[in-house]
Amino acid sequence: MHSTELVLSPRLRKTAFEDRVFELGIQSFTVYNHMTLPVAFSSNPDAYQHLCEHVQVWDVAAERQVEVVGPDALQLVELITPRDMSACSVGQCVYAPLADQDGLVINDPLILRLAEDRFWISIADSDVLLWVKGVAYGRGFNVKVFEPDVSPLAVQGPKADDLMADLLGESVRDIRFFRFIETEIAGTAVVLARSGWSGQGGYEIYLQNSADGLALWDAVWQAGEAHNIKAGAPNLIERLETGLKSYGSDMSFDDHVLECGFEQYLHPDKPAEYMARESIARMQKTGVKRRLCHLMAEADAPLPGLRERWEVSHNGNSVGQASSCAWSPKYNANLMFAMLGIEVSEPGTRLTVNVAGTPVDAVVRNDRWK
Amino acid sequence: MHSTELVLSPRLRKTAFEDRVFELGIQSFTVYNHMTLPVAFSSNPDAYQHLCEHVQVWDVAAERQVEVVGPDALQLVELITPRDMSACSVGQCVYAPLADQDGLVINDPLILRLAEDRFWISIADSDVLLWVKGVAYGRGFNVKVFEPDVSPLAVQGPKADDLMADLLGESVRDIRFFRFIETEIAGTAVVLARSGWSGQGGYEIYLQNSADGLALWDAVWQAGEAHNIKAGAPNLIERLETGLKSYGSDMSFDDHVLECGFEQYLHPDKPAEYMARESIARMQKTGVKRRLCHLMAEADAPLPGLRERWEVSHNGNSVGQASSCAWSPKYNANLMFAMLGIEVSEPGTRLTVNVAGTPVDAVVRNDRWK
Repeated sequence: MHSTELVLSPRLRKTAFEDRVFELGIQSFTVYNHMTLPVAFSSNPDAYQHLCEHVQVWDVAAERQVEVVGPDALQLVELITPRDMSACSVGQCVYAPLADQDGLVINDPLILRLAEDRFWISIADSDVLLWVKGVAYGRGFNVKVFEPDVSPLAVQGPKADDLMADLLGESVRDIRFFRFIETEIAGTAVVLARSGWSGQGGYEIYLQNSADGLALWDAVWQAGEAHNIKAGAPNLIERLETGLKSYGSDMSFDDHVLECGFEQYLHPDKPAEYMARESIARMQKTGVKRRLCHLMAEADAPLPGLRERWEVSHNGNSVGQASSCAWSPKYNANLMFAMLGIEVSEPGTRLTVNVAGTPVDAVVRNDRWK
Repeated sequence: MHSTELVLSPRLRKTAFEDRVFELGIQSFTVYNHMTLPVAFSSNPDAYQHLCEHVQVWDVAAERQVEVVGPDALQLVELITPRDMSACSVGQCVYAPLADQDGLVINDPLILRLAEDRFWISIADSDVLLWVKGVAYGRGFNVKVFEPDVSPLAVQGPKADDLMADLLGESVRDIRFFRFIETEIAGTAVVLARSGWSGQGGYEIYLQNSADGLALWDAVWQAGEAHNIKAGAPNLIERLETGLKSYGSDMSFDDHVLECGFEQYLHPDKPAEYMARESIARMQKTGVKRRLCHLMAEADAPLPGLRERWEVSHNGNSVGQASSCAWSPKYNANLMFAMLGIEVSEPGTRLTVNVAGTPVDAVVRNDRWK
C-alpha cells in the first residue's frame, strides 16, 4: 500500500466522530468531500474477517448530504438521474447514478426521499452540491439546495441487527432493505436506514446535529460491546468481493453512465425529463465502446496496492486500465475492477495486467466473479 | 502540526510531477481537487527563509483548470463572478471570486483569457467544473465546459526571474504581473504567466500534456541549480504575511462574497449580467454582519497548528473563529485569519482566541498587519 503523511488542518473538515476514531487507534485516512474518511484501524485482512463475522461502526460522515427541498424538488431530482425517482416512496432510498447531458457520471449517490418534496442526495466524492445548485439556478427551479448538518454513521456486519435491536427494540428488524425510519438515539434525532457500503448487512444512522456525534457513537459502541464491535471503515477486500464500485477510483466524470455497469439502476424510458436522455439513446443505438468489468488474477500472492491505474493489454495491445485491486480470501485470487474495451469484456477473456512493470495474467469475470 | 497517514490510491489523482516530488524528499501532503498537493519538504520556517531569498519549484498541478470555450463563453464567465471580465484582455489573468445567486463564495480562482471566446478558470479546492456545467446546461449556453489536461508548475522566489531568463531568454522579464505568453519549455507547449501563490514574485507554468511533466520539471530544475533552487510548496508563513486567504480554510460556500475582503476585485455595478448582483445590492444596503480579518497574537512563541477553527471571544462573548495561524519571523508574532463580527472588526480591537483550551490575547490588524 502506498502512503504518505497528511496534514490535518481546517481545510480538511473534521467529522462529528473524529475524536473517537483517533482514540480507537485509526492508522490511515483518505480525503472525501473535503473531509477526512478513515481507511484502516488494522490490516485489511483482519478488518475484513471481523466485518464478515461480527459488527463494525464506521465514521462515514464524509458521505455528505445535498438536500433538495421545495415545490420543484422532484422535477429537479428526476432531471439529474436516469433512474425513475417517481417510483421512490417517502421512507425509501435508491441507488441513483447522476449523469449530465453528455451521459457522463457526476456521482453515484443513494437518494433518500424524506417527504414528497424533500430529498437527501447522499454523495460519493464530488461536489454534487455545486452541480445541482447550478442546474437549479439555470432552470429557475423553485427549490432550496444546500448541505445540511448531517453525518452518517454506518453499523455494518452480520451482528448489526442484534446490536440495533438491543439499542432500539426488536421492531428495527422489520426495516426493509433500503428503507428508513426517523427516530432518536441517545436523545438525538436520527434517520435510520437499512443500507451501507458492504455486502454484510447493517444500517446507516444519519446524525442531524454534529454536536451530538460522540454521544451517538458512544451509544452504538455500548450496545455493540456484547456483539464484539470494533471500529472499522469501508473495506477494500469486502467491497471488491461484493462488487461495489467506487466513484473517483473506478469511474469518474470521464465515463458514460452506460459504460459503468449501472444498467439495473437506470430507467432510460422513464416518463420524466432527464438530462442524459438523448446521450443514452444515442449510445444505446451505437453500443458502448468500453465497459467497467470484473477482472480476476489468480496470482500466487496478493498484488501490491495501486498508486495509479494499471494498463491492461490483450495480445500486446492496450485495451484498458485496472483501477482497484485486493487479494480475496473468499476467491483465493486478486480481484480488480477494470474499464475495458467492449471487444475484450466477455467473461472468460484472458488479459495481461502491467503491475508496476511485471505482467500478470488475468481473466474477465461476470459480476459474481464467475 | 496535526498529521496522520494518507493512503495513496487512484482516487487521489497522481500529478504530472509526483515522481520528482517523492525523489526530492516530500514529507507531507494535503488533498486538493481530488489530487495530491505537496505541503512540506522541510520545516515551515526553513522553507520560508529559502523562498524569501532564493527560488523554489512547486507542484501545484492540483490547481486544476476549468476550460470554458465557445460563442457564449464570455457571457457565462461574466455570469459567475462579480468581477468585470470584459476588462480582461487576451493574455491577461485576473483574480475573480465566484459567487452564486445568494452571494456565497463558490471558489476564488484566477481566470486566464486565452482567446476572446476561451477561458481557463484556475481553481482552488472545489468542483467548479460541476457548478459551471450545471449553470451552462440550465441556461442553454453554447459553450463547452471541461477539465483539460493542464498542470501548473510554480516557480516562486526573488531569483525566479533570473532562472526563467536563463531558461527562455531575457524577454521573459518583460512579462507584466498577471500577464501570460504561450511558449515552449523542453519541447512542450506551455502557458507562462507572471503569477503565483506567494508575495515573492515568480511564474506559473501551465503544462498542457501530463506525459511531459517530468521533462518540464527537469528543465526548470537544471536552470535553477545556478540559483540555489529547492523543491517547495505554498508556504503557510509566507501566505499569511502576504495576506493570501485559502478557500476551504478561511472562507467557503458558507460565506458571502462581501464578507471575505474581496472588495478590490469586485465590480458590483459592472454592465454584464451576474448571478450575485441582487444579493450584493441587498447586503450593500444592510451592511455585512461579519468580515474576514487579520488577527495578530503577540504570544511569546509559535502557537500550535489548528485541526479545526479556534473560537474568538470579546469580553467573554463568542465573536467569531480563527481559521489559519502561523508564527511570522517578519512580525515576530502569530498571524491569523479570522471571520469576526463586524462590531469587533476594527483594527486595534483586542480579542481572546481559545487555543485548545488556553486563552491567548490577540489584536485585529489591517490587511498590512498594521
